[in-house]
Amino acid sequence: TDDKGPALTALFGTRLALQDDVPLNFQFLWETEEEIGSPSFEAALTKLVRSGFRTDSVLVSDTQWSRAGRPAIPYGLRGLMGFLVRLRTGDKDVHSGTVGGGARNPLAELSALIADCVDARTGKVKIPGFYRGVRRPGPAERRRLAADGFSRREFQAAHGLLDVRFSDPRRLHEAVTVEPTFEVHGITGGYTGTGIKTIVPHQAEAKLSCRLVSDQDPEAVFTLVSRFIKKRCPDAQVFHEALLSPYLVDPSGPHMEAAQKAMRAAFGKTPCLTREGGSIGAVVTMDRLLRAPVIMLGLSLPEHGYHAINENFDWGQASQGMAMFFHYFHNLASLGGGMGRKRRTLTKTTL
Amino acid sequence: TDDKGPALTALFGTRLALQDDVPLNFQFLWETEEEIGSPSFEAALTKLVRSGFRTDSVLVSDTQWSRAGRPAIPYGLRGLMGFLVRLRTGDKDVHSGTVGGGARNPLAELSALIADCVDARTGKVKIPGFYRGVRRPGPAERRRLAADGFSRREFQAAHGLLDVRFSDPRRLHEAVTVEPTFEVHGITGGYTGTGIKTIVPHQAEAKLSCRLVSDQDPEAVFTLVSRFIKKRCPDAQVFHEALLSPYLVDPSGPHMEAAQKAMRAAFGKTPCLTREGGSIGAVVTMDRLLRAPVIMLGLSLPEHGYHAINENFDWGQASQGMAMFFHYFHNLASLGGGMGRKRRTLTKTTL
Repeated sequence: TDDKGPALTALFGTRLALQDDVPLNFQFLWETEEEIGSPSFEAALTKLVRSGFRTDSVLVSDTQWSRAGRPAIPYGLRGLMGFLVRLRTGDKDVHSGTVGGGARNPLAELSALIADCVDARTGKVKIPGFYRGVRRPGPAERRRLAADGFSRREFQAAHGLLDVRFSDPRRLHEAVTVEPTFEVHGITGGYTGTGIKTIVPHQAEAKLSCRLVSDQDPEAVFTLVSRFIKKRCPDAQVFHEALLSPYLVDPSGPHMEAAQKAMRAAFGKTPCLTREGGSIGAVVTMDRLLRAPVIMLGLSLPEHGYHAINENFDWGQASQGMAMFFHYFHNLASLGGGMGRKRRTLTKTTL
Repeated sequence: TDDKGPALTALFGTRLALQDDVPLNFQFLWETEEEIGSPSFEAALTKLVRSGFRTDSVLVSDTQWSRAGRPAIPYGLRGLMGFLVRLRTGDKDVHSGTVGGGARNPLAELSALIADCVDARTGKVKIPGFYRGVRRPGPAERRRLAADGFSRREFQAAHGLLDVRFSDPRRLHEAVTVEPTFEVHGITGGYTGTGIKTIVPHQAEAKLSCRLVSDQDPEAVFTLVSRFIKKRCPDAQVFHEALLSPYLVDPSGPHMEAAQKAMRAAFGKTPCLTREGGSIGAVVTMDRLLRAPVIMLGLSLPEHGYHAINENFDWGQASQGMAMFFHYFHNLASLGGGMGRKRRTLTKTTL
């Protein structure tokens, strides 16, 4: 992935722990295809497991905090269902003076489809059945999630947003973490140069995706969405791009406690337990194939600008982050008391 | 413009008439900016008129027939109101895992705006007041328009359309000639490469236009449309690109008769009187400034492919077209009987 800073921080934190003789075995898994939906990861890990690969726990360094100074450990991730809708109504773009009014306009039709799928102002998905299976947080979880210090002003500033859909910070925070989405990433077709060229386009494509939350199934959502689209526009083609399951676990247990203690030791603050809006397909795969606790101890901040220009990682997060990993490994080693054997830890860093 | 073939046909037809000593004066006006909305034409013509430029009639070679073998003389043109809608909601594209659900999506919002403006399947414009002032053809005119031999099958084949909005050929023909439109020419913003990149775009732009019919006023329509858009999305910016008035005259009078006779002489068939779906701003300007009859004797066919790849002009239309112009000028010279003076004709060809 693009989280090179946190990955190196985990590597150096491990080195510190080894220099301090922590009684653990480490195995690093560098997952370099996260941004294209991890197409090789599952097969590779299956092969590893078949050849005898085991671990007692997994540590992931990909996640981020809601704000600087507010350490966070996520116990949930959103899934992803990326798809393309293509509509072709002719062989070539044609003069709108000659055919305009009579020719179908694929850009106008895709716009109507998108408007049928989502309320652009609220983000509410209008496809019947889309929210089926969604586990909504209860009052206790909502209170806990609200404790992570999320601020609308800082969120807007960190991401350069002139405006957001909700002024209430709790509503906004839930919209970006525990709710599914319907997003338009790009629309191609027709004339895209300067000014206007009065043609009726012959083809258009919308690049779309839904972030999903537990327990939405990406394949079922793809079937639902593509049926909805094909019903409205039978000659539209719908292709899926990426299918990543959402992830949600109980944020308790000895590994989570070890992580919380380590974060507190390194950053001087009790971390909040959060759910993250992004997707990490590898987490879901490791959880399923390795049958070991997965702990997400990421260090990124909103102002680091994931996927944006000038993406960065700061030294404060790096230096305290190394301390955090060092503490975590020591805490892990003391788990289980007199187990008398070296525990293994799989550190999943994705470069 | 791109009608170079018909323009040269008019030039050579004039040469034939001069060689045959037709008692007319000719003045050619080559208008080379039609495709960018003729920004210089009005000022240049005004200057010419102020310096004493006059003409008794105007001949335009820009128009087209509904099908090969069915000569047509248009007496109406649609106007055009081209415009851009731009919506900016952030400084940069941002990761949809981080901000998705909370950040406004300008592509989704523009899609909703477009869907609010037009019914993409029927082309019906949904903006209240849009059809105000539209002069609908009466039963007699509709019958006359239907006589031009328009065929849905040929129309689709000529323009490479896989499908059209209406199966009834009359309905389809009226949609492309006497009805106003709302067209999407392009939508830019976000990610447009291969596959999907899960960003929330920070800006989007829709390139749009309306073809207008008499008596819609392009500036009034721009005001109406931009108010409608700003009401739904106050931070959208709306810019107009091109404003061309529609044109509609009574298809009678001695010049029109001379044109019909000439077309019949050259092509062996009585031409039908039609209304054309395209826009020629220069026609409206000449009509207003020169106060002389404007006759549109174009020769293009649908299969010539205006604005498309492999645009062409065929020799049959060219050779018979020269004969048509030759006859027209002779017919024109005999107009007014013993007026005893050389009449002037302004041949407007646009290259």
